Formats: sequence, structure tokens, C-alpha cells
Amino acid sequence: MSEYWNIRPVSKERTAQIQHRIDTKTKPLGALGRMEEIALQLALIQGQDKITITQPTMLVFAADHGIAQQGISIAPSAVTRQMVLNFLSGGAAVNCFCRCHDMALQVVDAGMLEPLEDARLIQQRLGAGTQDFSVRAAMSLQQVNAGLKLGAELAHKLAEQGCNLLACGEMGIGNTSSASALLAALYQLPVEPCVGRGTGIDDRQLQRKIALITAAISRLDLPLPPQTLLAELGGFEIVQITGAMLGAAEAGIAILVDGFIVTAAALLACQLAPACRDYMIFAHGSAEAAHGRMLNALDAQPLLDLGLRLGEGTGAALALPLLRAACCFYNDMASFADAGVTV
Amino acid sequence: MSEYWNIRPVSKERTAQIQHRIDTKTKPLGALGRMEEIALQLALIQGQDKITITQPTMLVFAADHGIAQQGISIAPSAVTRQMVLNFLSGGAAVNCFCRCHDMALQVVDAGMLEPLEDARLIQQRLGAGTQDFSVRAAMSLQQVNAGLKLGAELAHKLAEQGCNLLACGEMGIGNTSSASALLAALYQLPVEPCVGRGTGIDDRQLQRKIALITAAISRLDLPLPPQTLLAELGGFEIVQITGAMLGAAEAGIAILVDGFIVTAAALLACQLAPACRDYMIFAHGSAEAAHGRMLNALDAQPLLDLGLRLGEGTGAALALPLLRAACCFYNDMASFADAGVTV
Repeated sequence: MSEYWNIRPVSKERTAQIQHRIDTKTKPLGALGRMEEIALQLALIQGQDKITITQPTMLVFAADHGIAQQGISIAPSAVTRQMVLNFLSGGAAVNCFCRCHDMALQVVDAGMLEPLEDARLIQQRLGAGTQDFSVRAAMSLQQVNAGLKLGAELAHKLAEQGCNLLACGEMGIGNTSSASALLAALYQLPVEPCVGRGTGIDDRQLQRKIALITAAISRLDLPLPPQTLLAELGGFEIVQITGAMLGAAEAGIAILVDGFIVTAAALLACQLAPACRDYMIFAHGSAEAAHGRMLNALDAQPLLDLGLRLGEGTGAALALPLLRAACCFYNDMASFADAGVTV
Repeated sequence: MSEYWNIRPVSKERTAQIQHRIDTKTKPLGALGRMEEIALQLALIQGQDKITITQPTMLVFAADHGIAQQGISIAPSAVTRQMVLNFLSGGAAVNCFCRCHDMALQVVDAGMLEPLEDARLIQQRLGAGTQDFSVRAAMSLQQVNAGLKLGAELAHKLAEQGCNLLACGEMGIGNTSSASALLAALYQLPVEPCVGRGTGIDDRQLQRKIALITAAISRLDLPLPPQTLLAELGGFEIVQITGAMLGAAEAGIAILVDGFIVTAAALLACQLAPACRDYMIFAHGSAEAAHGRMLNALDAQPLLDLGLRLGEGTGAALALPLLRAACCFYNDMASFADAGVTV
């Protein structure tokens, strides 16, 4: 049942050499802080003398969630489809940020309630929305494995076309519930601190969300393998994002990880293939409080902290210029010797 | 002796109208966090239906400091000049980040030890480095007023040429001592928590730096007016940056504030003309610990927190894409009505 992922851990062999190159740039040791860490990570991943970001691509995966029927979101499932139309016509926040930062954007139907005929939409439907995971498994293991494969194939295709940085975004009314449930189940944590207000639910909805996730987890005999957790508690977009990250890591390209939902997928990807972590750069810390727990579990420090809680991939699109800037200083900044600086 | 600054406070009259426009975009209320704050501030400053960043410019002011002779920096004053040559030939970190983020960069000699003949360098020398402020005033009040005026004129000239966002950077061995002293003297704070390791001094140098700044402040009969503080404890670059910010605010353009040194100048600018604060956007929180005190004094939350402690304007150059992204979503993102989203 388990997929085999052919991911080469990033070799740390060149670390000292790369760090030396960074340390001889015309700046005090370590003075570029996190920018130096990004440059080091990209240089290790790419294994080249010059590091670059080529054809950076945002894949926005959309899907619907059975649990949304329970009224634990600020919006009904119909909004998933409406927002996909908004993505396709270029009007959503993630469109604006991708355009502004020169990032390609593609939208994937991973399993919305109803299909949408549009040539610009990548059709990878795993079904017409998941089952309500508070009462039964969200999907079958067959759907999980199919979704992981579809996500991975898409990442491989992009890498073959020249993309060397993949970011994933998501749209799916109800998907913070799925992400919270996956976090709690994976690490067998109490449910309450894993759950937040998503895009802005009230106290009553929050209590209901906690109760439903608690009910879902009480169905399960934990611990369970990652594919089973995805089947029980996941969403079609979360499964495909997990697969896309695994595929990107197989292809040896960097992964820019967005917020709460995408980081839940990152957790699962790292469970399925720990070497995947080497390829991940964490874009931003979400205003959804439990995101910090996910990041801690991955030993990850995000680049941005802008109080975002929108999803879509917006945080990743906003972080992209920092990666380009890291390449620029790593490639082009003068060394002390070049510049005749005598520190 | 005091300059009169003709700065119009930014009118808050349109706040509700602008906030309504942000709130009807296709996203949950407040879900773009700090990005919404930037958009609101730029929209208030610019007073136009569309907000833009045009000809964003980084002015890097360089000067030398008498106190550098006391050995409280990791490098000798000679490095100020060497780094200016590096800026002029495009090899420093701030050059890389400005190039990468499409920001113009100009270098100003505000008073290095020795003049440098180079047509690309803007000559605004207030002297051949300041006096050692641990024993006497760094400069005269005449120099302060001349420097404020030169900085302001430069900002006005840029604004007339079409620049609507000014960032300042700096180079000057010893200038964290000056910035720390200004902070401590302005708010009559104990010296020690206002002082940090700059670009990386050791414990012995740190103790010496604290002692010298304490000696400098004990010369003074506080409180003193801001021009006098600049004369006693300032640097030629800090004075001109203060003037440039005041000039930018007079011209009604936004100011992107860099790290520790530039924020010290921002403190003084806001003392000289409190309305200047309305035009300031704070780019990043420096690793220099006392930067947090400065930001608190200005009620400012920086956009980035990347552990930078390089100066030059690097933090401001890195934050620029976030401002462009704020413009993009404010101008172009669909409203619920546009997109037919029924939340």
C-alpha cells in the first residue's frame, strides 16, 4: 500500500565550502541572518556554483470537504468553486501576489463537489468532495495513493519543464479542520490546541469544530501510518499537495511551503519520506495558532510573519523575492578580496 | 536655529473608505494581516484611487566617526571608504538586493575621513569625519543644520524626478555607537540596554563602548533639543538621513525605514517634526537588540525579522517587494461583487 519515494537526501558535503563563500562576502560574519541560511540551503539543493530560481510555480489545489456540512467554517462549500473561478480569472490575492512577483500559477481541481469545465483548470479529481471525517473516513486508501501519485506527477512535469521551485497553495472550505485533525492525530496531541478559528469562526463554531475533530480522532486506534491518517482525516487537496512535495523532492527541486494547510501536508510528506524535509523552505508563520506546533515539529523557522490567515499560497508567493535576493547576494556579492576590503 | 519643516500630517479622513475597499476584497476580514496595514498606509499617503511604487530609491549615506578611533568596532575607519568603493562598483549586499528588487541606489559622501573623487558619488561632505563624541561634541549646530538641509534637498530632488518611496541606508564605522548614544540621551535611558555588539564586537569592546557612551552622555545636561543631541552625539550620515526623511515627508512620499542606525535618524526626524511618522514604513527588526526599543518608541512594527545586522539599507531593500505586493492586491484584487463570491 505504501508508495516508495525515491528522494535523495541533500548532501551536506559542500556545507563548509558554501559557508566559506558566504563568510568571505563583504559583510561581517552572519550579518545577513536568515538570508544566509536560505542561500546555503539553495546551494546545497542545487549543487551548482550559481544558484537560481527558474520558473517558480504555484500550484493551487482545490477540493471540498464533507465536514463543511457541519457549519464549522465562515463560508459554505459553494465558495470553494467560486474562489476557483476567481483564481482562474486572476482576481484572488494569490493571483495578485504571483503576478507581482513573477511566479507562474496553475489551479488544480483535486476534488471539488462539482466538476468545472475550464481548459485552464488541471483536472485531477479524486471524487466529489470527501466524506464527513467526523463520522467516517474522509476517503479510501486507494484515493490517497492515487492523489499522492497525481500530485507527484504534476511536480515532476513542472521540474522537467524547467521549474526549480515549487510552491503549493490550497482552497477548500473546511480544510483547516482537516489540517488540525491531522496534526493532532499524527502527534497524538490534545485536540484543542491544534484547532484555531480558520478564517474567522466564532466561539460557538470553534467549540463545535473541536468536538467534531475530537469525535473523528476517537474513531481511530492511534498511532496509524501516514497514508491511513490521510484517508481518515485528510482532504483531496491535502493529499495531492503531499504528493506534489514528494514529487518535487524526488526531482531535486526546492519546495516553498505556505501556511497551515500546506504545512499539514508537509508533515505528512516528511512522515512518508523524511528526506523531503531537506528540500523545504518555510515561507511564513500563519496567524492560525497551531501552525507554530507544526513548524516546531518540522524544526522549521518561517521567513515571514505577517499575520496572514488566508491560505491560497499567499504567504509563499510573498516570500519568493527573499529567495531571489538570497541567490543574488550568493552569486554576485563581492568578497573581501574582490573589493579590497581589509576587515 | 531650528529648521521649520513643512510637513502635512497624512489625513485619516479616507480611512473608512479605504478600509471598506480592503474589506470587500475576496478574502476573510483581516486575512492579509500586515499587508492590509501597508496598503492602508500607502493609500492614505498617496491619496489616489490606485497606489503605486514609482522609482523607489535607496540613498546610502557614508561618513566617518571620531569615536571609531577608540576601537569599539570590528573594523577601522578605513573600511568606510573601502565599502563606499564597493557600493560604487556594485558589489555590496545592498547593491545586490537593490538590483534584484529593481530599486535605484545612490551613494552620498556625507563626511568620510577623506574625499573620494568619483562622479557617481554625491558629494555632501559636512567634514572629514566627526569629532570623538566621548570627549566633545561630534559636530557643530551649523553642521547639523547644513546636513539636515542637504538631506532634505536630496529627497525633494528625487521626489520631483518621480520617486515616491525613499529608503535610506548607511555606512560608517562606529555609527552604532552614535545611534545607541542618541537613543539613550533622547529618552534618558540607562546606557547599557541601548548598546549592542554592532556587527560583532567582543565582550571587552562592548564594555568599552558602554563606558564611552556613558562618558559622552554624562557631559550633557539632558533633556536637550534634537538638533543639539545630533550635534553632540550624531554622525554626518545620521544627520543627513534625518534630513532626507524630513524632506521626503515634506514632499509627501513614503519612507521605508531600515535598521538600527536609520531608525535612530527616524527618532530624531519625528522629534523635529512628529508628522514625519505618518510617512514611515518600518522594513525590518535588526538583530541589534536595542532596535526594539527604538521601534517601540515609534510605535512601529517592522515587516521583516530576518536577523539582519549589516546596515547599508539591506533590510529596506529586502522589504520593498512587500510594498509592491500590497499595491497589487489593493489595486487589482477582485471584490466579492466582482467575483460573484457569496460569503
